[in-house]
Amino acid sequence: MERYDIAIIGTGPAGLEAAVTAKIRNKNILLLGNKSLSNKIEKAHTIKNYLGLPEISGEDLQNSFKKHLEQMEIEITEDKVNAVYSMGNYFAIQGHGGIYEATAVILACGLSTVKEFSGELENLGRGVSYCATCDGMLYKGKNVVVIGYTKEDEKEADYLAEIVNKVIYLPMYQEETDHDARIEVVRDQNPTGIEKQDNRCILQTDSGKIEADGIFILRESVAPSQLVPGLAIEKNHVIVDREQRTNIAGLFACGDITGAPYQYIKAAGEGNVAALSAVNYLSDKTKQQ
Amino acid sequence: MERYDIAIIGTGPAGLEAAVTAKIRNKNILLLGNKSLSNKIEKAHTIKNYLGLPEISGEDLQNSFKKHLEQMEIEITEDKVNAVYSMGNYFAIQGHGGIYEATAVILACGLSTVKEFSGELENLGRGVSYCATCDGMLYKGKNVVVIGYTKEDEKEADYLAEIVNKVIYLPMYQEETDHDARIEVVRDQNPTGIEKQDNRCILQTDSGKIEADGIFILRESVAPSQLVPGLAIEKNHVIVDREQRTNIAGLFACGDITGAPYQYIKAAGEGNVAALSAVNYLSDKTKQQ
Repeated sequence: MERYDIAIIGTGPAGLEAAVTAKIRNKNILLLGNKSLSNKIEKAHTIKNYLGLPEISGEDLQNSFKKHLEQMEIEITEDKVNAVYSMGNYFAIQGHGGIYEATAVILACGLSTVKEFSGELENLGRGVSYCATCDGMLYKGKNVVVIGYTKEDEKEADYLAEIVNKVIYLPMYQEETDHDARIEVVRDQNPTGIEKQDNRCILQTDSGKIEADGIFILRESVAPSQLVPGLAIEKNHVIVDREQRTNIAGLFACGDITGAPYQYIKAAGEGNVAALSAVNYLSDKTKQQ
Repeated sequence: MERYDIAIIGTGPAGLEAAVTAKIRNKNILLLGNKSLSNKIEKAHTIKNYLGLPEISGEDLQNSFKKHLEQMEIEITEDKVNAVYSMGNYFAIQGHGGIYEATAVILACGLSTVKEFSGELENLGRGVSYCATCDGMLYKGKNVVVIGYTKEDEKEADYLAEIVNKVIYLPMYQEETDHDARIEVVRDQNPTGIEKQDNRCILQTDSGKIEADGIFILRESVAPSQLVPGLAIEKNHVIVDREQRTNIAGLFACGDITGAPYQYIKAAGEGNVAALSAVNYLSDKTKQQ
């Protein structure tokens, strides 16, 4: 498997600036996120304080970022990251699309607005999963519930439908679903909690209960506390120092995930620092060998 | 005297971003620096990692910044700052052009490359001065040496020539001087140290000695340790936390003055954070009253 120098998770301003700076420093980078960059920016009406780009619309700012990536020939690998494991000498990154390896990792996945359901974290890995590709095979021939947050998630539900006995799909969005015929779509039930009874999972909703062997929650992002085992967190933000280092050697964080202010230029500035700290980390590592 | 909410010292990316953000938050700001912004940027050949402005020349980057200031109607007050004093409830800022007052101060004056002459700091205020406007009258009828670093400094020498008996001017630049007839210009002598003998100052140079009652050293910037009495410094950088707070309440720092990496987007990001921290400081102060 190819081992990247630096894997960057997130395609908002923090991740993009980190990628640009790491590329300039000749590192072999993996940039994980969305080719459409950031929904949050796309929808911003006007940004007034991104110095050098006065009174810019979110759409135009995104286009400036895209132009920057094109000019530097930086590619985005479209994937959602489920977990990052420190393997001592490198990191294993579990994406929905597969496993990646990198010597250093930069977390730039944005503010986690995740509010877990009651009972969710307690049952993670015990009936609750965030990733169909990763855990689908565990539910072969069984019944699962899939909670989807974007149309993209229907593909993961389709994949599960090929393996499991029955998929019940709860779309948390308004658009029409375009699902596999084997999938039962349940609308207008909002999940509130998860309970375990014997080996069965009970999904509680505001209008009833759904029983299954497993529950897949396909959120846009995983809360930082769940993303990296052992990562130091305070009030749902990753704790970093002025070099954007986390408590785990080789792991850096930048942008909204590190806390307020939630501002584009702050995020970009931190991405720059995180990339240069990662470059220094790699350089120190090479010298030690 | 008008008391500003926030005084920002420096017109590089850190100071400019701080000004833009503070203005958006409706603060009454004073931006001190040069209308030509930053010499360092102006001379940069190409900047590759200012996200959103790919492959931009230093000149074009400066122009983008100037356009941003114009659009937001932010004025620059051209002055060099000599000292910042915490007065408890506000700050007094001693510029060459006068005294300013502000409730909060943001230091964004860049990397100090100042290497003081031997004996300089020991004799500061005892024959050595950084500011003609501030201390000129102390040398009425006496003889002074003025060490100038830019053509601008000739104006201060001219001012001194009106007060003192004799001005010896040492230009530390190549351009022709355009001085007052009363001023004696001495070229090609590089200062190396300052000594005090009785009440006289001896300026040692690489080719001799010049004796005077006072020595004015008109550097572009004052070392942070000299700029603010009591400011916590480490290796010539101002110590700040993740909110860009210094050890002095109401005083913030951002950009190169806080340490490496010396990068434009890092500086701008920190300027944004410093401004919002200053805004929070003002808001807390108002609540306390």
